[in-house]
Amino acid sequence: MSKYYLGIDLGGTNLKVGCFDSELNQIAKTLNPTHADMGPEAVIDRIEETTKKLLSENNLTLDDIISVGIGSPGPADISEGIVVSAPNLPEFQNVPLKQLVSERLGKDVVFENDANAACWGEYVVGAGRGVKDMIFFTLGTGIGGGIISNGELVHGFGDNAAELGHMIIYPHGGRFCGCGQRGCVEAYASASSTARRATEAIQAGTPSSLKKVYKEKGHISCKNVFDHAAQGDKFANEIIKGTAEALGILCVNIIHITGPQRVVFAGGMIAAGEPLLKSIKEYFNYHIWPLKQEKLEICFATLGEDAGIIGTAALAVHQNQKLRTEKSSDMS
Amino acid sequence: MSKYYLGIDLGGTNLKVGCFDSELNQIAKTLNPTHADMGPEAVIDRIEETTKKLLSENNLTLDDIISVGIGSPGPADISEGIVVSAPNLPEFQNVPLKQLVSERLGKDVVFENDANAACWGEYVVGAGRGVKDMIFFTLGTGIGGGIISNGELVHGFGDNAAELGHMIIYPHGGRFCGCGQRGCVEAYASASSTARRATEAIQAGTPSSLKKVYKEKGHISCKNVFDHAAQGDKFANEIIKGTAEALGILCVNIIHITGPQRVVFAGGMIAAGEPLLKSIKEYFNYHIWPLKQEKLEICFATLGEDAGIIGTAALAVHQNQKLRTEKSSDMS
Repeated sequence: MSKYYLGIDLGGTNLKVGCFDSELNQIAKTLNPTHADMGPEAVIDRIEETTKKLLSENNLTLDDIISVGIGSPGPADISEGIVVSAPNLPEFQNVPLKQLVSERLGKDVVFENDANAACWGEYVVGAGRGVKDMIFFTLGTGIGGGIISNGELVHGFGDNAAELGHMIIYPHGGRFCGCGQRGCVEAYASASSTARRATEAIQAGTPSSLKKVYKEKGHISCKNVFDHAAQGDKFANEIIKGTAEALGILCVNIIHITGPQRVVFAGGMIAAGEPLLKSIKEYFNYHIWPLKQEKLEICFATLGEDAGIIGTAALAVHQNQKLRTEKSSDMS
Repeated sequence: MSKYYLGIDLGGTNLKVGCFDSELNQIAKTLNPTHADMGPEAVIDRIEETTKKLLSENNLTLDDIISVGIGSPGPADISEGIVVSAPNLPEFQNVPLKQLVSERLGKDVVFENDANAACWGEYVVGAGRGVKDMIFFTLGTGIGGGIISNGELVHGFGDNAAELGHMIIYPHGGRFCGCGQRGCVEAYASASSTARRATEAIQAGTPSSLKKVYKEKGHISCKNVFDHAAQGDKFANEIIKGTAEALGILCVNIIHITGPQRVVFAGGMIAAGEPLLKSIKEYFNYHIWPLKQEKLEICFATLGEDAGIIGTAALAVHQNQKLRTEKSSDMS
């Protein structure tokens, strides 16, 4: 009898597939290059091959699979499962990914954008466990995320919700963001923006131990900034304060909107660890009104790179449970 | 057979009661002073008297009523129907309003805070009709509101959601807000803040036709500012631009979070009419990234002072429909 679920995390670089039971215990997982430049048809082929290989290596077949979740970079039409266009999947234009994967694997497929899928994974079995209202932020090249309100993902009209990094907090004279707006949180607090703010200041002659890095490598990474801050460089610490303050204000604003119990930060930057988390909390407490100071839990994600496959599998489980509930109520 | 619903809008000054059919056509309504200073027991008495009088004047009794909705100023425990404390109802501390009204009228009661109730009213039969994702802002002494996501009100953890005026947009050097934060939208764009910004500048000697108003009355109202702007006063126009810009940025930030299709502004300030709406839209388009410029409908509320009684009655209808659906699925 079928008893497992597949979670597929389709990224611009890597394709990850995981197999889970209904309690989301991991049975097996694998990672392969996506080869996104070869176009949608080739990527569907790779999804099929990778999945079948993973299953056979674990003495399973598609017959053991109940249903499948897949996550993809956006923008997408989520309910229809169509990748509208995706900077990381340049050949994908209006690709009906959900339908194509469903036909190829012969299974029901549930589709989500990658950030929402990871958000759902953290919500179900990661750092968001036990709450019903949560915000998930990914701190990487950009700042994305997902919103859980009363136990459900918030999609918004035209799947427009949760562009969380593009909240404007410095409208007058703020930094320009890649999106075209001015003063977005992302223009200060993404890993790229953190590195860029440091680089610009070093180029302008600000004294710092990062100057040596810039001279040797020609650029400064976000990790360099955090490393030099940890070693006591005053300027690097100022840059990180700018990052943490923008994220603290983001938390203030989000608690006033959807009223989360918990905010979960994920993405490469959380490798900076406790000092970053502490600083975000300090700025949150500095900017929030006193009554609400104790009311928001701010923490780091716990699922790491597996959030995508766990989240998509969890969405498949969730969908299946909903269908079964509806069916049993129809039949009663 | 019972076929009507009551909507009760409990305000600090006035108590409004309306009777509606299940299509939310108004059968009758009335307004009485609340006398909130006489305490909860006296207010419950007034609710009972006012309701019974309204019904009898329309040849109805409580037997004609299916259920009741009541809205109250916050903060409140919404699911339990408890008014925790309310600046406008100073004698109300942890008052189980839902239970008390239910016992007194012998009906099921659904409870909401006043802003959410008005939001629901606009959503069901007012300016929000036809969409599933909407934001509702009230522009009055403060800025409050409600959020509809996928057809449901967003409450958040501990009913903490939708403190929409307290989004910070000028964190550094911004005006202090009554809430204790710095740079909130409310500190710029509420009716009170609009008047206050004008008054402060006039006191500081800024030239304007408002100077005469200040000298004669000792203060400047929000309406004065809009009136003088309409008559061509340059300074009054600058003040209103500050209000509209804060509201435009609020719209930018909210579209990136819950992804509404429509934003509805309500409250006393919308009497300023088309010039205010136009200016908000201009600032929204100025600050939003180009791709999203056409994606948000910004409009004024249409239900006026009746939004509260319509919204609470609509919540009673909604609750009753949910209960009937559950019941019929249990019985099938």
